[in-house]
Amino acid sequence: MKGVFITFEGPDGSGKTTQLHRLAEHLRRLGQDPLVTREPGGTAIGDKIREIILSPENKEMADPSEVLLYAASRAQHVQEKILPALEQGRLVICDRFVDASVAYQAYGLGMNREAVEAINRFATSGLKPDRTYLLDVSPEVSRERLLNRAGGGSPAVLDRIEQKGLEYHRKVREGFFAIAEAEPVRVRLVKADRSPDAIFAEILEDCLQLLPL
Amino acid sequence: MKGVFITFEGPDGSGKTTQLHRLAEHLRRLGQDPLVTREPGGTAIGDKIREIILSPENKEMADPSEVLLYAASRAQHVQEKILPALEQGRLVICDRFVDASVAYQAYGLGMNREAVEAINRFATSGLKPDRTYLLDVSPEVSRERLLNRAGGGSPAVLDRIEQKGLEYHRKVREGFFAIAEAEPVRVRLVKADRSPDAIFAEILEDCLQLLPL
Repeated sequence: MKGVFITFEGPDGSGKTTQLHRLAEHLRRLGQDPLVTREPGGTAIGDKIREIILSPENKEMADPSEVLLYAASRAQHVQEKILPALEQGRLVICDRFVDASVAYQAYGLGMNREAVEAINRFATSGLKPDRTYLLDVSPEVSRERLLNRAGGGSPAVLDRIEQKGLEYHRKVREGFFAIAEAEPVRVRLVKADRSPDAIFAEILEDCLQLLPL
Repeated sequence: MKGVFITFEGPDGSGKTTQLHRLAEHLRRLGQDPLVTREPGGTAIGDKIREIILSPENKEMADPSEVLLYAASRAQHVQEKILPALEQGRLVICDRFVDASVAYQAYGLGMNREAVEAINRFATSGLKPDRTYLLDVSPEVSRERLLNRAGGGSPAVLDRIEQKGLEYHRKVREGFFAIAEAEPVRVRLVKADRSPDAIFAEILEDCLQLLPL
């Protein structure tokens, strides 16, 4: 029996992490035992890679290196955690996956999309989520939420990716839209400029149809 | 004017690093100003990646992660150091490059060779060395030299890659032979079970023909 693989995608500040944990908690109360994990990271090696990717001191990071580091972290994550759990028939819920690389690196940084996809197919052995919840908010709303979360501070409290400008985050959003349009069955576009309860109700309804409960 | 790009390849214990520094020193006395660098590493970000790759504690490293981490370090190295130096017309001498990934990962680990090559083309923007000195010794000789270098100690003093068995290192050697056979003009196979002076004389003679001195 193969487990179900669900991912959450969207910009920082879209509320995806909150929604992901709320869904996992709800499913636990229904007797499920989901593996909840996140990218980049999710493993000891992945966490070390995540540190390199996100550290604001690594400003000289070349774009191809960023693509390859995310893919390296993902490869470790898939081999060490996600595939073994799915093979045991477990539900896996993951905060970000390949779609994030396509949106942030192919669309955001302007790297070749086919190359980013090929590298990620190598990293994941071709694994695809059964369902992806893509939480959409505008770059302006997401930035405001992030600054509020950081205690109304200056942009210096944001990590290396968050510090990039609005123009970059607009291209990332375009990328997410393109992915949702190309795969409307796998990817559910969820408007995330609403109340957390409204967002959660929509995700839960869809998820309960998907899962063999 | 574009500079000349020379790489040294071969197993640990083949003497390649000694020969590389000897060549650089000789060329400096002839008035050249070579950039001497090494992989994995060669940049601040690359050194952090190198730590993850080589740390013996990262035993759970998945093979695709290893391929992608080497490529990430290489991408940073090419963009930040090698290409800028070549564009200034400088001679660049590098300890290991793409051939090492093909030998160690495609041949040694058994990863798909085309995938390893494609990922590395992405990482290097297709950059190829003008000349590669491939120092060849048997896995038995290389292992003995490494243990002697470490003070006659136990295998525990070797890094994660060096600790792998002789069978692995035999496949790596096969990979190096295949590369040398496929590109006999770029790659010069140098027998490294001889005296350092004999090895150096052979490398220097070839190199002086190559360089516009």
